[in-house]
Amino acid sequence: MRYELYYWPEIQGRGEFIRLALEEAAADYVDIARLPGKRGNAFERILEDAADGRTPFALPALKAGKLVISQTANILQFLGPRLGLVPKAEAARLWAHQLQLTIADLVGEAHDTHHPIASGLYYEEQKPEALRRAADFRAQRLPKFLGYFERLLGINPAGDRHLVGRSLSYVDLSLFQVIAGLDHAFPRTMARMRPRHPLLAALHRRVAERPRIAAYLASERRIPFNEYGIFRHYPELDKT
Amino acid sequence: MRYELYYWPEIQGRGEFIRLALEEAAADYVDIARLPGKRGNAFERILEDAADGRTPFALPALKAGKLVISQTANILQFLGPRLGLVPKAEAARLWAHQLQLTIADLVGEAHDTHHPIASGLYYEEQKPEALRRAADFRAQRLPKFLGYFERLLGINPAGDRHLVGRSLSYVDLSLFQVIAGLDHAFPRTMARMRPRHPLLAALHRRVAERPRIAAYLASERRIPFNEYGIFRHYPELDKT
Repeated sequence: MRYELYYWPEIQGRGEFIRLALEEAAADYVDIARLPGKRGNAFERILEDAADGRTPFALPALKAGKLVISQTANILQFLGPRLGLVPKAEAARLWAHQLQLTIADLVGEAHDTHHPIASGLYYEEQKPEALRRAADFRAQRLPKFLGYFERLLGINPAGDRHLVGRSLSYVDLSLFQVIAGLDHAFPRTMARMRPRHPLLAALHRRVAERPRIAAYLASERRIPFNEYGIFRHYPELDKT
Repeated sequence: MRYELYYWPEIQGRGEFIRLALEEAAADYVDIARLPGKRGNAFERILEDAADGRTPFALPALKAGKLVISQTANILQFLGPRLGLVPKAEAARLWAHQLQLTIADLVGEAHDTHHPIASGLYYEEQKPEALRRAADFRAQRLPKFLGYFERLLGINPAGDRHLVGRSLSYVDLSLFQVIAGLDHAFPRTMARMRPRHPLLAALHRRVAERPRIAAYLASERRIPFNEYGIFRHYPELDKT
């Protein structure tokens, strides 16, 4: 099965959670919008009315045969068993998906630190509000989320190296990406918090060192962090 | 199977999407925090460390036998086939879940109109920001979401009465709840938008008239809208 990923070509964004799963599994996939030349230009047409009526609201979308799926966590839930990145039992899959949805909540809140008023406006147009929201994120929300995931690693009966069971899942890959993004966006805050979250730091390191992930991160397929995506480094939002 | 719902007893909130599905299916369930006397007081203990390591981040949570599930859309995905509220085919289930996640996005944005800075602060402490965010929600985001769902009803090959296939699903129930909430929170804006969204208005009416839903809405089990929940009526946020 050749998978087709439809996502914006200039950012990691939410598409990156899908890319990491496909890369770790060495899956056969095409990142449509990043095809050379003009071939990828029409990627947004997947948002036009579909013949089966199943049109996505937004990207990323994944095409698998005739199926078009969107919503990042939903795509990962679909890919998980096919790529060997989630256990087979229903209870474990529900748990993995539940964690992925909690990661999605954290990602949304990280995004809203620089866009608390409107995603259609520039950061500069909502900077006073961003300063306030980012302060609350650093003081309240981020510690709550990181503390939760650190605690889960500690109480996982199968060991503290993975969030779901005893082996790597797409949830570990996604949490790696979130930590990488937070390290980029909030380096001072994260440096301060790291000593209190040793299991998360170790998970982040282990994922980065996996051969396929390391190769991906060093390749041109990995888009660098920038000031268009979810995780943006604005020093004024990272005061401690 | 007797289901146990764990959610705040004073608000509809995200728990209401679960309640509606359980009510429509006439499922055997207990709304733990609303049990009479002191029996429901310990509902938050479900957020304490679980022996199997699968602790929810937040409520609502559903207990089904030994399984504890959280994240609203995940709970509905679990209940859907068990309550006969989603088609059997995998593609249809993924589609239903994708729509539910898009509804969750809309619900989050509706909440953030009155809490754009911090969920831990009062509305009055973030009112200038709320005025700005609500203006963008009314002008940009709400029309985009409602237009999307109206369009989906129109292009559903199985007819314009349901979002998924040819019969009622938990997604229809959730969209009913969103429209009811928006009508409460933004009555002027919604009155202005209604003529352009006739299929949504008809779906909302039909769901409200279903015998079990009508009985539920008229019962004391339905908590009234209030100024603690997601959908709050602050007239200043509903200027047109």
